[in-house]
Amino acid sequence: MTQTLIQRLNTWLDEQVLPLREHANKRCISIVDQRLLPYRLDEVTIDSFDGAFNAITTMQVRGAPLIGICAAYGVAMALASDASDIALTQYSQKMKTARPTAVNLAYAVDYLYDHLIQTNKADRADVAWQLAKKLNDADWAQTMAIGLHGLRLIEKIAQKKQGVTILTHCNAGRLATAGIGTALAPIYCAQLSDIKVQVYVDETRPRNQGFLTAWELLQANIDHQVIVDNAGGYFMQHGLIDICFVGADRVSRTGDVCNKIGTYLKALAAKDNQIPFYAAFPEATIDWNIADGINDIPIELRSADEIRQLSGLDQSGHLQTLTILAGEQHVENPGFDVTPARLMTGYITETGIYTPDHFVSNPSG
Amino acid sequence: MTQTLIQRLNTWLDEQVLPLREHANKRCISIVDQRLLPYRLDEVTIDSFDGAFNAITTMQVRGAPLIGICAAYGVAMALASDASDIALTQYSQKMKTARPTAVNLAYAVDYLYDHLIQTNKADRADVAWQLAKKLNDADWAQTMAIGLHGLRLIEKIAQKKQGVTILTHCNAGRLATAGIGTALAPIYCAQLSDIKVQVYVDETRPRNQGFLTAWELLQANIDHQVIVDNAGGYFMQHGLIDICFVGADRVSRTGDVCNKIGTYLKALAAKDNQIPFYAAFPEATIDWNIADGINDIPIELRSADEIRQLSGLDQSGHLQTLTILAGEQHVENPGFDVTPARLMTGYITETGIYTPDHFVSNPSG
Repeated sequence: MTQTLIQRLNTWLDEQVLPLREHANKRCISIVDQRLLPYRLDEVTIDSFDGAFNAITTMQVRGAPLIGICAAYGVAMALASDASDIALTQYSQKMKTARPTAVNLAYAVDYLYDHLIQTNKADRADVAWQLAKKLNDADWAQTMAIGLHGLRLIEKIAQKKQGVTILTHCNAGRLATAGIGTALAPIYCAQLSDIKVQVYVDETRPRNQGFLTAWELLQANIDHQVIVDNAGGYFMQHGLIDICFVGADRVSRTGDVCNKIGTYLKALAAKDNQIPFYAAFPEATIDWNIADGINDIPIELRSADEIRQLSGLDQSGHLQTLTILAGEQHVENPGFDVTPARLMTGYITETGIYTPDHFVSNPSG
Repeated sequence: MTQTLIQRLNTWLDEQVLPLREHANKRCISIVDQRLLPYRLDEVTIDSFDGAFNAITTMQVRGAPLIGICAAYGVAMALASDASDIALTQYSQKMKTARPTAVNLAYAVDYLYDHLIQTNKADRADVAWQLAKKLNDADWAQTMAIGLHGLRLIEKIAQKKQGVTILTHCNAGRLATAGIGTALAPIYCAQLSDIKVQVYVDETRPRNQGFLTAWELLQANIDHQVIVDNAGGYFMQHGLIDICFVGADRVSRTGDVCNKIGTYLKALAAKDNQIPFYAAFPEATIDWNIADGINDIPIELRSADEIRQLSGLDQSGHLQTLTILAGEQHVENPGFDVTPARLMTGYITETGIYTPDHFVSNPSG
């Protein structure tokens, strides 16, 4: 049955516009400009290091796993014109500064560097491209494995009640990965297994990545409703949420989960209402160097404009940006928070489902 | 000192545009259209029951205490043309349906009804106007008392550290009352007592009443920053919040606090970080008929358009509305949630500061 499910997932995924895809004969990639979704589905071609770097910093490309893959392709593109040790080192270092919180970016760049520094200069550009492709393929496979493991949690609930309700925060779906997502992977698997699911989608201010999740779910005909970030506690208090799935940008070796700002508040509410709360991520998201997630994971402080300005469609259907909060008002905009391991029910990775005990008892990795 | 502080508050308040004011010689009121703030400060004249009713339902007037006052003036206006028992009963009943959650509205209308049903028909319109005015004056005095009681909590923190940081949710300021607000009242008192305060203002989606709070604080030169609703937990985890003040729309006799959606999430985060969490409200906010706040307080389910659409200023400074989430996406929009008494540090009313024990041990009122 698992084989059939993966085949069905593949068939379905083949029909979708992928958030990042290689061009057939040229060494460039196309990405979906996620700043324009859900208003417009635009693909952008990237053929240079700077193009990839800017796509990550401006969040045309987003989602921890997809950032890593895009970064790898970007380094590969740089090496096509200069494959020297100095270039390899400098481009790698620069790419790692594109965004500070998600560890997948550093993981992907280091993975390339460690291989390429031992590779002949003449072969580096080719090998780099193959390695980026390998990361892309690996991410696809990891999301499938995450989906199948997480599906067991949904199936367990579905045995006891008709229809499973799931809350998710931000977008940890297929737009954030090369495959079927992390937090949304079990949901896609449930849908293709004919389990009735209903997803409560946090809007996820300030950038409203919940709208990306809603867009994905609409494409996949998965029942869902968008709620404001403030409302999750209400729905949990009233018994309307069975389980929560979120993604992760970095996980400490003790199991603290750094994810999109606001995740911690939902984990608190889940705990208070005895609702299982799981983070789903590839194991490359674990930072074995960090023990104290709250104090030691660097949190990106993002632009005030993300709070001050908002885009949408005017009456003629044109994409416009309005100022909702003027410049005279001070603003602070941390992009992530950290949910301590004590609030987590568990973790879904490509190798299985783990409890916080597993992390706390494996402090050295 | 207290006398001087009240004088200073009055002097300051006299210089502000009040959210609701009586006209000098006519039986009508002016209200600030709060749907246009912070973009435009427009006053609207209300001279009829329907005008008052619509101002409440459309949220031109908002904030639990101010809704009650506006409702009282509306009933008084209706009686000017028909002061019969039937009119008194029907207008009172209709007004109570304007919004379901805040108990102050029913309290104000019942207060008028109970007096007026025993009043000669010929005098009813005059007496009704005087009663509405009395509620207005009482609310002003109650907010002053709330401010002075709450100030003691801020003073206690200021004795130990330089500068007090306060988180608030929604707008429970002077725009929500006839005086200096409820949650913001202690902050205004602190500012006029030369205690350095800094306010973290939750944006408060979907209607962004945090922008009203920020507007108020800017007018009063009180240091503040606007944050998204998701971010409060982050600032609490990092020791940046000393105390939280919120308002209330209805409080059960057991101390459960119904307030703007999202309050419960902040109370959870405050508890998790040992940060004191207080609700401030006039005692008319307590509903002695309700023991179980979570299950028995009616929660208003509001329009999907509040989530789908958003207003702001375009590049020319014109107020515009954009669609941020299309109609094909389902939306659910509860306006309030309930924070159980076990998460509350205390309650600030016009008569003092109370702990949850006080409520739980006084179940009969």
